[in-house]
Amino acid sequence: MTTASYEKAPLHSSRGTICQGCWDQMHVPIPIRGALALPFRAFGITRSKMNPNICTICERAFQYVKKQRHVTADATILFADIRGFTNLSERMDVVKLSEMVSLFQGRCAEAIWAHDGIVNKQMGDGLMAIFNFPIVCTNHVAAAILAAQDIQRNCSAALRSLNIDPGASPDGAQDVRVDGGIGVGVGIHSGDVEIGEFSSFRSDFTAIGGVVNLAARLESQAAAGEILVSAAAAAQAEDLMAGTHTRSLVLKGIEQPVQARVLVTH
Amino acid sequence: MTTASYEKAPLHSSRGTICQGCWDQMHVPIPIRGALALPFRAFGITRSKMNPNICTICERAFQYVKKQRHVTADATILFADIRGFTNLSERMDVVKLSEMVSLFQGRCAEAIWAHDGIVNKQMGDGLMAIFNFPIVCTNHVAAAILAAQDIQRNCSAALRSLNIDPGASPDGAQDVRVDGGIGVGVGIHSGDVEIGEFSSFRSDFTAIGGVVNLAARLESQAAAGEILVSAAAAAQAEDLMAGTHTRSLVLKGIEQPVQARVLVTH
Repeated sequence: MTTASYEKAPLHSSRGTICQGCWDQMHVPIPIRGALALPFRAFGITRSKMNPNICTICERAFQYVKKQRHVTADATILFADIRGFTNLSERMDVVKLSEMVSLFQGRCAEAIWAHDGIVNKQMGDGLMAIFNFPIVCTNHVAAAILAAQDIQRNCSAALRSLNIDPGASPDGAQDVRVDGGIGVGVGIHSGDVEIGEFSSFRSDFTAIGGVVNLAARLESQAAAGEILVSAAAAAQAEDLMAGTHTRSLVLKGIEQPVQARVLVTH
Repeated sequence: MTTASYEKAPLHSSRGTICQGCWDQMHVPIPIRGALALPFRAFGITRSKMNPNICTICERAFQYVKKQRHVTADATILFADIRGFTNLSERMDVVKLSEMVSLFQGRCAEAIWAHDGIVNKQMGDGLMAIFNFPIVCTNHVAAAILAAQDIQRNCSAALRSLNIDPGASPDGAQDVRVDGGIGVGVGIHSGDVEIGEFSSFRSDFTAIGGVVNLAARLESQAAAGEILVSAAAAAQAEDLMAGTHTRSLVLKGIEQPVQARVLVTH
């Protein structure tokens, strides 16, 4: 597999007119932009907040087609959060803090959407993204890694623009330091996940399973600026692994040590 | 303050007709049940999925009234998740796993709603609830602790009903054990949080700030069956603290050790 196969040119040609998710999952063309989208909009079918290139129903419509509440899918899961946020949140002005969260969430979403992922969950200073569902990606591990690199680049520039001095408290005292600095940590793992709705009382479209939990655990171990990719996922995108080293991690709830490749974006 | 003050009788008298959140925050009576609710429903104003006793717009309508994107509010934050889930998700059948998640989310929501909280975020085997917003609680720390006790009771019965044997792997081998057993861990902290929408691209109504992060960290330290209440929060509900002991915790991102009261529900 060459790096060229990670390019997403074919998908983009149809972008802007139909929902890519409905097309990839069911081969149904649902207009999401332009005049043809208007009658659909009248029935509440609009562009998804998880990714503007898919529609609000395609996320779960496939379930009705398949007559089941959830399906098993091969997908790549990406978790990202702001390192040092707990420390910052103890001492930083809330307006600045919420600016930081908005900036982080916005920059991450742009990176994820650019590589055909969906922003599935946002939890304060963290998020979870899914690649290869509902938009099919040729190499979804590579797509997630490229998105993670964009996240690191976009966020480090954005966080710098906020002029947050990791060495200063909001009241100006200089004796407060943020452990390990401010930055973003990312964890990536890939494999079979269960996708669907797992709540009886609300639309909780998400992915669950061991793969999701391992991705979350990897993210929790990533230092500011680091992308931790499970060895299993990394094997599917070796071309992107140049310059990485391997770290052996003992993760909560997982019996065997997990091998992860450490990618640092400059 | 007596235990009696934790009862929620006054609120319940008006339940079933108007949105309690709109009433508490803005003194606007929005019908959510009965014939009067029908015209509102036509405009998309229905019962919230976060709590069926509030409406879909009251969660954020106050912001437009106050002409700001977010507000500071005194609230209690509760985090809960299934202990041993990562371990289980590595070896359990996905259908059983999703049953377990649905059951957990359902039982937790019932407990939270019964004490006037809202289920703000659901993240796989975990959730975050807010007390005192938008429904005002006389003692929101007590409300959250009572909800946590209901969560522990409801969930331990429900998890038992699933017949999950912590000592068995799904293929019947008996050599696989779940560290610390299956159960629910809960963390509670209280104080000023920033409530609003912190995402530029989707409706991400939530609470952020140091109080939220500390509650999450407490939950991550709670063993199966435990409710960890920060000492600061516990001081506001001493009547409910009988039989607890204090644990000193060193938490990631927080410089000083945190004192927590440990509540175990039998």
